[in-house]
Amino acid sequence: MRIGLDAMGGDKAPECTIAGGVEAAKQYGYHVTMIGVEAQIRKSLRVHSYPAQNINVVDAAETIEMHEPAALSVRKKRNSSIVRGMELLKKGEFDAFVSAGNTGAVVCAATLSLRLLPGVDRPGIGVIFPTLNKPCMVIDVGANIDPKPLHLLQYGIMGDAYSKHVLNKENPIVGLLNIGEESSKGTEFVKESHMMLSESKLNFVGNIEPKEVYHGNADVVLCDGFVGNVLLKVTEGFADAASRLLRRELKRSNFITKFGAFLTIPAFKVIKKKIDAAEYGGAPLLGVDGSVIIAHGASDEKAIKNAVRVAAENVEHKVNTHVVEELQSY
Amino acid sequence: MRIGLDAMGGDKAPECTIAGGVEAAKQYGYHVTMIGVEAQIRKSLRVHSYPAQNINVVDAAETIEMHEPAALSVRKKRNSSIVRGMELLKKGEFDAFVSAGNTGAVVCAATLSLRLLPGVDRPGIGVIFPTLNKPCMVIDVGANIDPKPLHLLQYGIMGDAYSKHVLNKENPIVGLLNIGEESSKGTEFVKESHMMLSESKLNFVGNIEPKEVYHGNADVVLCDGFVGNVLLKVTEGFADAASRLLRRELKRSNFITKFGAFLTIPAFKVIKKKIDAAEYGGAPLLGVDGSVIIAHGASDEKAIKNAVRVAAENVEHKVNTHVVEELQSY
Repeated sequence: MRIGLDAMGGDKAPECTIAGGVEAAKQYGYHVTMIGVEAQIRKSLRVHSYPAQNINVVDAAETIEMHEPAALSVRKKRNSSIVRGMELLKKGEFDAFVSAGNTGAVVCAATLSLRLLPGVDRPGIGVIFPTLNKPCMVIDVGANIDPKPLHLLQYGIMGDAYSKHVLNKENPIVGLLNIGEESSKGTEFVKESHMMLSESKLNFVGNIEPKEVYHGNADVVLCDGFVGNVLLKVTEGFADAASRLLRRELKRSNFITKFGAFLTIPAFKVIKKKIDAAEYGGAPLLGVDGSVIIAHGASDEKAIKNAVRVAAENVEHKVNTHVVEELQSY
Repeated sequence: MRIGLDAMGGDKAPECTIAGGVEAAKQYGYHVTMIGVEAQIRKSLRVHSYPAQNINVVDAAETIEMHEPAALSVRKKRNSSIVRGMELLKKGEFDAFVSAGNTGAVVCAATLSLRLLPGVDRPGIGVIFPTLNKPCMVIDVGANIDPKPLHLLQYGIMGDAYSKHVLNKENPIVGLLNIGEESSKGTEFVKESHMMLSESKLNFVGNIEPKEVYHGNADVVLCDGFVGNVLLKVTEGFADAASRLLRRELKRSNFITKFGAFLTIPAFKVIKKKIDAAEYGGAPLLGVDGSVIIAHGASDEKAIKNAVRVAAENVEHKVNTHVVEELQSY
């Protein structure tokens, strides 16, 4: 398995990103191509020991920063790690490409270089959410912030294929994120999407209210990329705020409460592992003609390692072949 | 202070709703008018002891259920607790009206009966979010799911007035919920809203990312009602799922971890109180010509009691007078 890694992508790049790539090469035996500013990569690699034949470096002198405008930066920085990585993937130099960099730029470069799969009008990012029940894929979380109902139907078909072939779910349940259960609720966009999904061959369960997402009663939840991004980020923000609040409160507590908290650490560790985004690695960019995995900007070494693993799984399970088959059957 | 209470509103109505109203009458000395099916209210009241002169009952034979279509039910059920309550508020029978019932119906009945304040084109629901810093009001969380940028500007002006006069904040910081910091981010609606808010006299800080809402760096956060509802409900859903996960994990834990959790209870109680929606009571329906407070559908006795208190505070602080003054100065 040959994976390309955007060595410059992520808030903790290049060190953490490279460390994650090295770890994936060592642990899983993948061949990892690191793309980015060569001198920096070589310097970061020096602190690691790894089988030399499993890692190579491709120089890309430019870097697209996290907050640069997506389309413009992709057009101007042809020698950036994101654009170069996408071109090498297109050429078949590796089987999948992973980036924790500027999401908009990754989506834009992927669409331009790789093109879309037949039957797909817009790419979508599918993120696996941990829930009380089974994991659930939410599509889209930011690739397409102003979609048409048809795009949501296509996301539904792609999410269905992903759930079946990667997550081994039979007849995946597809839901539509809406602020009420009834089909009469929501914006015109949501109502039209509901109608289109109802008429499709998908196992469409109707509207899923935001408070139910974490119950895990659906395998795939569809929404526009703006709302999906809010869903993802507000959860992260709240979880972070709640844990800070807990730590702040424990600091103020007496010895007994502090001691109790110390004893409770094992339970919290299990929970953290269950809901930690880093465990799930990256999110597939569905709909482009190639395997592209978008990792969280805040990815640490473990998150990058897992994103590389997710990329390999996408390739092994031939996600795109199944997506195309499923789209054609509609 | 005279408060009207929709005795039939809320998942736990009429018992809990009535208990909350009685508690507010006893604790704060308000006069509470309970509106709903008289026989049921009288029966529920029997289990309480309270000063008789502080509570009266108005019969409304019909009830709008939680999931009925808003506009239709308001038009058809003229003798429902929501429609009757709004008419009595309009007539001046009490100073404010509180309902934990069908939100859409409350918004619709309020708009039809009370009309909008001069300078307001759409009402908005403002919910107080607890944060790591100061509390923050998010407008709108569901009254207006497809607003225009002008509506967001009006929400900003109303939120500013509310923060100044009810929450005693000087020069409140107003932010716009968006999926990126830069003004170039987001949908056309969000970008236009950003421009309009930038040109206003508000203390506009620009975009607030979803992960930052709980940091509490803004006093007022503006968004469309669909996104605001997702923001509110997904937080509740996640908090609920996380606490269930914790309990499930503790059940499986060994004695030491369980004992630790027992010792930690005081810290969790403080946090629960800080983030418990019930503590904040209800959300003002801003922009209608009357004081209307929307309580959470899942309100328990304490939440209703606090919603009644919030209603009284709205009246005492002359929220609408200040809103109109502020709107006129623009």
